[in-house]
Amino acid sequence: MTESAPIVVSVDAMGGDRGPSVTVAGVAAAVDLLKRPTRFLLHGDRATIEPQLAKVSPAVRALCEVRHTDRKIAADEKPSQALRRGKGSSLWNAVESVRGGEAQSAVSGGNTGALMAISKLLLRMAGDLDRPAIVASWPTAKGVTSVLDVGANLVSDATQLVEFAIMGEAFHCAVHGADGPPPTVGLLNVGSEDMKGREEVREAHHALRSGGLNMDYRGFVEGNDIAHGTVDVIVTDGFTGNVALKTGEGLARFVSATLRETLTSSLLAKAGALLASGALRQMRRRLEPPGGGVLLGLNGVVVKAHGGAEPRGFADAIRIAADLASSDYASAITNNMARLSSALERAKAAALEASA
Amino acid sequence: MTESAPIVVSVDAMGGDRGPSVTVAGVAAAVDLLKRPTRFLLHGDRATIEPQLAKVSPAVRALCEVRHTDRKIAADEKPSQALRRGKGSSLWNAVESVRGGEAQSAVSGGNTGALMAISKLLLRMAGDLDRPAIVASWPTAKGVTSVLDVGANLVSDATQLVEFAIMGEAFHCAVHGADGPPPTVGLLNVGSEDMKGREEVREAHHALRSGGLNMDYRGFVEGNDIAHGTVDVIVTDGFTGNVALKTGEGLARFVSATLRETLTSSLLAKAGALLASGALRQMRRRLEPPGGGVLLGLNGVVVKAHGGAEPRGFADAIRIAADLASSDYASAITNNMARLSSALERAKAAALEASA
Repeated sequence: MTESAPIVVSVDAMGGDRGPSVTVAGVAAAVDLLKRPTRFLLHGDRATIEPQLAKVSPAVRALCEVRHTDRKIAADEKPSQALRRGKGSSLWNAVESVRGGEAQSAVSGGNTGALMAISKLLLRMAGDLDRPAIVASWPTAKGVTSVLDVGANLVSDATQLVEFAIMGEAFHCAVHGADGPPPTVGLLNVGSEDMKGREEVREAHHALRSGGLNMDYRGFVEGNDIAHGTVDVIVTDGFTGNVALKTGEGLARFVSATLRETLTSSLLAKAGALLASGALRQMRRRLEPPGGGVLLGLNGVVVKAHGGAEPRGFADAIRIAADLASSDYASAITNNMARLSSALERAKAAALEASA
Repeated sequence: MTESAPIVVSVDAMGGDRGPSVTVAGVAAAVDLLKRPTRFLLHGDRATIEPQLAKVSPAVRALCEVRHTDRKIAADEKPSQALRRGKGSSLWNAVESVRGGEAQSAVSGGNTGALMAISKLLLRMAGDLDRPAIVASWPTAKGVTSVLDVGANLVSDATQLVEFAIMGEAFHCAVHGADGPPPTVGLLNVGSEDMKGREEVREAHHALRSGGLNMDYRGFVEGNDIAHGTVDVIVTDGFTGNVALKTGEGLARFVSATLRETLTSSLLAKAGALLASGALRQMRRRLEPPGGGVLLGLNGVVVKAHGGAEPRGFADAIRIAADLASSDYASAITNNMARLSSALERAKAAALEASA
């Protein structure tokens, strides 16, 4: 793609708890955040989308093209049902636009299990990778930490955890630290001693530590290391990662609310808050949770926005999708695959050895 | 125990990353926090403890009695090793003081697995309960939420999750809400729909929802519900709970540091911070993580302090131990056991039915 060609982001306009009222407003809010000219394909029910488009500026409307479908995937639909019955739905079509090359990336705030299953079916796993993972970028004391998996899988065995480490390292390198030293990687556990933790976590630890991977693996990390930024990439199963991510988001909201309440609790506090308002605004922005997670391991960029996102959060997910599409993320993944798949073989051998 | 009799708290003085330099200072810091007259048994190496005692006030020293032992349990010792070789160690003796009736509660910042195994051996499980759980009290937007398990178990099946719900409800009722309505209970998951989540979580959900338990069960909750205070008691396995707790602690520290940095970033911000300092101090106190978790399900009160706690955190764990000892927690648990064990039978039957 040349520098001047506009990026195309494919949007599941019906996804998320509130559908087009959030996704269309999110597109409008995203436009100002984007580095490169970007157009949008809005997949979903034209009759619901058009009234929302009427609310945004003509300039934004001109960037949007509605691709009508009256089918959508319900939030409580099982992945297997979504695969069978989801064809032609807004989520399916959003991913299909990437597969067909019409769009460089897709964004959906819909059913996570369905998005993963459909993305895996349409885009296929890259190289020898087994399962996709969702990676979230967390603000930390030292910058950004990539945490994965935060919800694509409920259970992960040792080999999958090793794959997550490989994918997470490649992602972090491409998106957050292409110019710096290789990313450092840690495995989330309930203690730092070798013998601690669940069996699959200890097995993955042995495999990663075996050194065959050419990765700066730093061993076990704990929950508090996420915000501390102890390592660049933190690997865990999707259940634990999802709970950790949402716990952090909930706490950030609680802190924000408490701060607001605190700084309006007295005249003195109000005066103080007024003087410090610029600094406090900056701080709030620094604490904001990431707007979306990226599905890793696929031949294509798919971003999962939070189902309950506000327009600003959805806009952030779109920004991530557009930034990834205009970065060398895809080619970095492709280029890394040879190293990754042979490293994976070595890791699997090491895991087998460790468990023998 | 009569109102006037002093409470006795048994302390594993060698436990935690820094041993007596934190535990003795913690005892000194706790004295001012306690509602009732309290004495302390300090188990550990006299030669290491005495120099620390020399640093505290004579009034505090007079409340302490050193019980010498030169044995201690290492942080990396496996529970099975601790059971075989731990007899006579500071941790063992601290729990033994409770079993023998010399102390009303024990506090240790040592090896969690060893503390759990030894407490289970010496104090025995109460009634028909299967495994202990560690409960943490989280500050929330609405008050306090009891979260369990936060580290006693690495894996939990559906029946154990149901037991945690029962224990957590009894604990919360006794400690945080004796006078209010019955505590509300939620099960931690990655979504709120019935079909979501790991198998054991869905099974426990069906058992709790079956209604035989006489419990105000509200269904699935997610990570963000912890800080939001959506329910009074949140149930999860020890791996996920531990990661969530530490993620929250790490984030709270990050926020604190960012706030400090923000409010000293410019002259204007500094002036604002000065005016709002009283309110900000109150806020920081409100966000402080709990100093310790309580081991539930045993015939006796055992509090696990964080291994890396500062004296103030260790003092908070002692305060919890003393408050529990002087509350009707123990008798509430005992009184509840009849209801609990028959409820457990019903829950087990419901779980079997649901999985059939």
